[in-house]
Formats: sequence, structure tokens, C-alpha cells
Amino acid sequence: MSLPVNMVAEPRLRVRYAETDKMGVVYHSNFIVWFEVGRVELLRQAGFNYRDMEIEDDCHLAVVDVRCRYKSPAYYDDELIVRTRLKHLRGSLLQFSYEVVRVSDQVLLAEAETTHLVVNAKFEKTTLPEKYVSAFNAAIGQEQIK
Amino acid sequence: MSLPVNMVAEPRLRVRYAETDKMGVVYHSNFIVWFEVGRVELLRQAGFNYRDMEIEDDCHLAVVDVRCRYKSPAYYDDELIVRTRLKHLRGSLLQFSYEVVRVSDQVLLAEAETTHLVVNAKFEKTTLPEKYVSAFNAAIGQEQIK
Amino acid sequence: MSLPVNMVAEPRLRVRYAETDKMGVVYHSNFIVWFEVGRVELLRQAGFNYRDMEIEDDCHLAVVDVRCRYKSPAYYDDELIVRTRLKHLRGSLLQFSYEVVRVSDQVLLAEAETTHLVVNAKFEKTTLPEKYVSAFNAAIGQEQIK
Amino acid sequence: MSLPVNMVAEPRLRVRYAETDKMGVVYHSNFIVWFEVGRVELLRQAGFNYRDMEIEDDCHLAVVDVRCRYKSPAYYDDELIVRTRLKHLRGSLLQFSYEVVRVSDQVLLAEAETTHLVVNAKFEKTTLPEKYVSAFNAAIGQEQIK
Repeated sequence: MSLPVNMVAEPRLRVRYAETDKMGVVYHSNFIVWFEVGRVELLRQAGFNYRDMEIEDDCHLAVVDVRCRYKSPAYYDDELIVRTRLKHLRGSLLQFSYEVVRVSDQVLLAEAETTHLVVNAKFEKTTLPEKYVSAFNAAIGQEQIK
Repeated sequence: MSLPVNMVAEPRLRVRYAETDKMGVVYHSNFIVWFEVGRVELLRQAGFNYRDMEIEDDCHLAVVDVRCRYKSPAYYDDELIVRTRLKHLRGSLLQFSYEVVRVSDQVLLAEAETTHLVVNAKFEKTTLPEKYVSAFNAAIGQEQIK
Repeated sequence: MSLPVNMVAEPRLRVRYAETDKMGVVYHSNFIVWFEVGRVELLRQAGFNYRDMEIEDDCHLAVVDVRCRYKSPAYYDDELIVRTRLKHLRGSLLQFSYEVVRVSDQVLLAEAETTHLVVNAKFEKTTLPEKYVSAFNAAIGQEQIK
Repeated sequence: MSLPVNMVAEPRLRVRYAETDKMGVVYHSNFIVWFEVGRVELLRQAGFNYRDMEIEDDCHLAVVDVRCRYKSPAYYDDELIVRTRLKHLRGSLLQFSYEVVRVSDQVLLAEAETTHLVVNAKFEKTTLPEKYVSAFNAAIGQEQIK
């Protein structure tokens, strides 16, 4: 029997000049955009494409809550990992967690969680189709086994 | 007989910290966003709301060309004027021009033009409804009189 | 004796097209930028200019924590109020709170708090100069009286 | 004798949700940010790191002119190539050209040029150090041979 691989997405990205501010570090709202990169990559690893999820299943993950603790500044041209996990799935609510780590020195720059409500294109709460529920629960379970 | 008022929009905006970069000045792509602020304000002065133009008339001004000359840096907290004019209207093509000026010292920071194609929601070239054509031509004419 | 005016900043801003996303609403990270607008306006009302605070006193309010609950979508061209208060000041830590409200129907779109550490240009924790401490405590006190 | 490799950078990036707008396509100013990604990658291929260029040589490539023709919309989750070349180098002026191409169907989405002035940290025009001049001229020459 093989142990399940932990469902963690670790997309890498490089800090753009446009993302820095006059203090010489990344402006804090850009981390929130990077979390989207992590989330979408986690979905991809779970076998789904968020673009199709919206188009084919009219399923949209509307953000209802964001919490982020900034630990250390990110600098221009830093290569970063956005370590992303699916933490909870309860009905139409999903919660993801994130750690932003600099590749060069493995320093943890930020920790965060985002909570999302599954809605249709009219922003009405909707039910997550079964195929996502089972895949997402598996993703959470795999992590819990660790 | 009263002379027509020149059709120039001059919305003001204040530079946000988020718009600066590590050189301590505004990152150049933000000017392109400010031009949108100028354009929408000019439409408003001409009697139109771009939101309604999209919803009610399925008329969208898709950007097909942008040219911008940067003359002098904009700094954090600067109050700026985005002086905006409609320069040309030929069929489904509109061209706007812009001057970004700092309020405090009247220094010209950038000059630009953007060209737009009138399209429907499917990005198909469409005809500008007559009410816009006449108002826009008046806007151009007024400026030419000056 | 006149009661102190509550220290609440209520800057207004209009949603830019650039801030919307393909769901037709404002992308969530833009709210985080708007909080900066509120914060800076509150400082201005307290008699300070954040630009000078950085240049003259080498005092920077580095963001260490952001929490935001999204209640209802913001739409293109919406005029919004970013109601901003200073909630706490403890040593080198400041906490601001925010409510984003749409002007037209007074709907509350988001509630948030951000926590900031006072640092110098090298991101070293520093002490808030006395002139800010007294003004900020007054700002909090005024609100508490309400 | 081996022929020189053409000096063309072709970084890939994936369209973020944050970069789309309510028309369902990428908002046009984001292309301008992507050009930076291409430029920095070209410098990297030429053996330089723009971060070091700023820190060690006090050489900054301030944008003085941007021109972009938008040919076709970019969509969410599209994988794009930002094909970047150094076109001209005359004293303290550099010009880069760009083609943004969608990987899946090789459609050309935009063509652009940006012009940059070499400045120091105080935004004073400065001379490009010899090591860059020779490397950059080689980069242009290689392309011209093609």
C-alpha cells in the first residue's frame, strides 16, 4: 500500500518590480494576489482547472474572508514559494491556508488563510458538485494523514 | 451667443503608496490606469456613464493602442490632474489624449494617447449609437474652436 | 464645553475598471489598497502627512496583519466610502479598522482591520515620536467618547 | 565557427484572475507589467541581474516611452510568452520590443516597444557601464544576424 502524497501546491513566482513600493519591499496587497496563484495551482493538482470550473459548472469561489500575517519583507526579484493547502470544506465553504517562503533562504515571509463561498455567476450560494467534494475531501485527508 | 465650453475632463487623483515602486516613484503602468479615470470622466461630462454605455447599449471601448511619453516622475501623495480630451472619432475608432500634471507645481509628468475600438460584449466591432456620435463630435468640435 | 469630534476618516473613491475582474465585481485585493487610502486620510485629519512622517521622522507603518470580511460585491463605477478609525495604539503597534460602504445604497461591502508596526527605513522596530502618540491617543479617545 | 544564438527572451507567464476585468479579458495595463518580466529575463540571459544592476552599479532603466498595439484579448489562465528583444542602444537610451503570444494557439496578442533612459538613483541621466554596453551590443548584433 502506498501512502497518499500530501496535497500541497507549491507554485513558484518571482517578485516583479511593479509589486514593490517606495519602502523597497513588496506592497502587502500583492501577497493576496499570490494566494490566488497558489489556490489555482492546488485545484490543478487536484485535477481541476478553475477556468473550466467557472465555465462548465458555474462554480465560483468568492472570497469572503482573508487573514494574513506578514513576517518578513519580500524583495524585488526574490523567488518565492506559495505553499498552499485546502484546510476545510464544509458545505459551500472552503478554507485555504498559505505560507509564502523565499526560495534562497527558506525564510517564511507570510502566513495566511482565505475563506471562500461557492457561488454561481449571480453570486448566489450554490452547492459544490460532487466531483469536487470528493476530490477536495481527499486532498484534505491526504494532508491530515501526514 | 455663448461660446461652447471646451470639452476637457480634468479629474484629480492622489498617488497611492501601492502605486509607487522601489525607485520611490510611481510605477509606469499605473499611468495607463489613470487614463481610464480621465476617459470615464470625459464621458461623464459629455452626459454619459460608461457603466450604462456597456449595460444598456452593449458598447465597449476596447483599447487597441496606447502611447505614453513619461516626462518626469510622479511621487507618493502627489495630487495629479489627468487632463483628457477626445481627439478623433472615425467610425468605430476613438482616440483620446492625456496630459498628467502635478497640481502643486503644474509640472507635466506624462503625455499620452489611447485608441479604442467600439465593440460589443463578444468583442465584435460594432457601430457607435447615434447619441454618442453627435455628443462626441460636439466634444471634439468644442475643443477645435478653442 | 464642546464634545470632541469623532476621529473617523471617510474618504470617497470610485471603483475603476482596472479593479474589476471577470466575475464583474471588484477583485478582493483592491480593498486592501483602499484601506491605505483610508489610513492616510485619517492621519491627514489628525494633522499629519504620511509622506512627511516617512521623510522627516523616518517613521513607517509596516503592515504586519490584515483581516478582511467581504460582505457584498463592489461594482464598477460604484462610489465608495472607506470609513477608517484608529482602534489601538500600544507602543510601536497601531491597529486601524475599516468599513467599506457604497454611497448609493449605504450597503456595507467589507469590514477589516490592519495592524502596523512602527519601523525605520531599515525595517527596524522604532518608537513613535511623541507628537504622533498624543495625537493618535486623542483620536482614539475621541472615538471612545462616542 | 558557431553562429550566435539569437538574443531573444521568451519568459512564460499565466494570466491571473486579478489581471482580468469585467469584460472577461485581461485589463490592458497588465501587459505593460509583463513587458518588465520580459525585459528582466532578457537581461538575465545577457548575464545580468537587474537587481544587482541597480544596487551595484546604480544603473536604473527609467521608462520614458511605451507603445503597445493590442491585437487580440488575453483570457484568464492563458499561458503567454513575452517575446522580448533589445532593439536599440544609443548612449543612455535603450529600446526593447515585445510580442505577447498565447502558447496554446500561437496567436499574437500584442506588439510593443518601450524606451528607457539610464539614470542613477536620483533620476539623473547617467552612462551605461562598459560591461553592459558590450553585452547589449552583442545581444542586438546577434539578432541582426538572423
